Amino acid sequence: MSRQRATVFVPGHVTAFFSAHPDDRPAAAGSRGAGVTLTDGVTVDVSAASGDGGTRLLDGEPSAIGAVEDVLDALDVPAVDVAVTADLPIGAGFGVSGAAALGTAVAANRAFDRGRSENDLVRIAHESEVRRGTGLGDVVAQARGGVPIRLEPGAPGFGALDGIPADARIEYVTFGELSTETVLGGDTTALSAAGVTALERVRADPRLPTMMAVAREFARSADLLVPEVDTAIDAVEAVGGEAAMAMLGRTVFALGTGLSDAGYDPEVCRIDAAGTRIVDERGRE
Amino acid sequence: MSRQRATVFVPGHVTAFFSAHPDDRPAAAGSRGAGVTLTDGVTVDVSAASGDGGTRLLDGEPSAIGAVEDVLDALDVPAVDVAVTADLPIGAGFGVSGAAALGTAVAANRAFDRGRSENDLVRIAHESEVRRGTGLGDVVAQARGGVPIRLEPGAPGFGALDGIPADARIEYVTFGELSTETVLGGDTTALSAAGVTALERVRADPRLPTMMAVAREFARSADLLVPEVDTAIDAVEAVGGEAAMAMLGRTVFALGTGLSDAGYDPEVCRIDAAGTRIVDERGRE
Repeated sequence: MSRQRATVFVPGHVTAFFSAHPDDRPAAAGSRGAGVTLTDGVTVDVSAASGDGGTRLLDGEPSAIGAVEDVLDALDVPAVDVAVTADLPIGAGFGVSGAAALGTAVAANRAFDRGRSENDLVRIAHESEVRRGTGLGDVVAQARGGVPIRLEPGAPGFGALDGIPADARIEYVTFGELSTETVLGGDTTALSAAGVTALERVRADPRLPTMMAVAREFARSADLLVPEVDTAIDAVEAVGGEAAMAMLGRTVFALGTGLSDAGYDPEVCRIDAAGTRIVDERGRE
Repeated sequence: MSRQRATVFVPGHVTAFFSAHPDDRPAAAGSRGAGVTLTDGVTVDVSAASGDGGTRLLDGEPSAIGAVEDVLDALDVPAVDVAVTADLPIGAGFGVSGAAALGTAVAANRAFDRGRSENDLVRIAHESEVRRGTGLGDVVAQARGGVPIRLEPGAPGFGALDGIPADARIEYVTFGELSTETVLGGDTTALSAAGVTALERVRADPRLPTMMAVAREFARSADLLVPEVDTAIDAVEAVGGEAAMAMLGRTVFALGTGLSDAGYDPEVCRIDAAGTRIVDERGRE
């Protein structure tokens, strides 16, 4: 029985710090680190193609995402229409590409009854994202929800996750794009050393304020801070708040009302408790 | 900074089939199998004790749960009041004891800022439940949400999980209690052999209808079916539905409108997408 259509929500994911762990096998490659998943996210609708070949829409405009195409190939689905709708800015460190890949995997599996398990779908999306060079850790984090700690890199079967048990309001402001491919394509040795140190500190004290403090140090020691974000972090700290830079984007995020208190006009959401989930009302049993 | 109070929701969990895997180390002991988590669940409120020593309430009545006490000891929290409220019948196969233990762990950690990670809290609740003999696999399933497949037994660090990606309406009817301790305390060899076979079939085809069919066979071959449940399963099958017995309870659960269609007057909920989550509004940042 095939529904021919399914809709899936994937939370946004902001990485607070990370280390990069390349591997020839895309399922084993990935990143370690920590971050927050957000109730602002990406909705992916997959359905049987209305015309020849199928359409690809990103926020209503024709636009193809490489990892999405790879996921569809891996699941061997028929010609489909894929519509990706993002609550979040693209290219700004929210894991939109990973969300699009994972949402497509879960939605296509449901719409065309592909009979894959959750781990299988997460692996397919993770591999597609890694091969395209657009991300290393967003997919496994977005599948879990909450505040994922990526203990070991890679897809299910390779990686290992923990989490900071937390619920909080999150504010964010984006100043523009930053290319994940450029940073991840360069020398990541110093960055990764800082990321491993940061992870050890969060594992020793898995609390949100610790993650934010560690993330600020990471961004500084890895030389990733951009001026607008640096200024915003300082402004939030000056009013007693906790803020950090999104990896990788010209984005600052803060706990609670940190950015509002500092005079910014942020977007507001919360930590997402659920992770990736089917949200279609069609074909419900 | 300690909030002194926190409220946590834990979904109910119905095991469809399982195999038991004892181990001298409670974190390594557990079960393999599959089941569904439910939007009907258990809410646990933990707060600083209002009087000497602290109170324990279960649905408003004074009542202590062994695993809850063990969790509080493990987290070394001060004198607390614990109020457990269940949307579900107790002793009927919904994992209420596991939910109470896990909810207490997450709520006490938050209320008294214990700084434990999610894996740590799941392990503490799992160990408490195993030591008390009240369950083997509910806690890890309830932490995850969805339709968990327990690939390997035990707490995080020992066990391994997958899931059937699904959203569905679930109906259930309970005919009374069945002692988990009695079944798990007896010879579980034949039961576990049937459970391992069932797990292989669901791993080969991770779909909900397959899980339900496999669960019916498991209950029959493990000789666990009680007459009222057997009758109800047959009635649902006769109208083209999918039903199975909850392990371990005198409970039948069905996909969609199976029990309604068969003339029963069931409780109605859905598969829970989120797993265990903090729901208190107090102290929100």
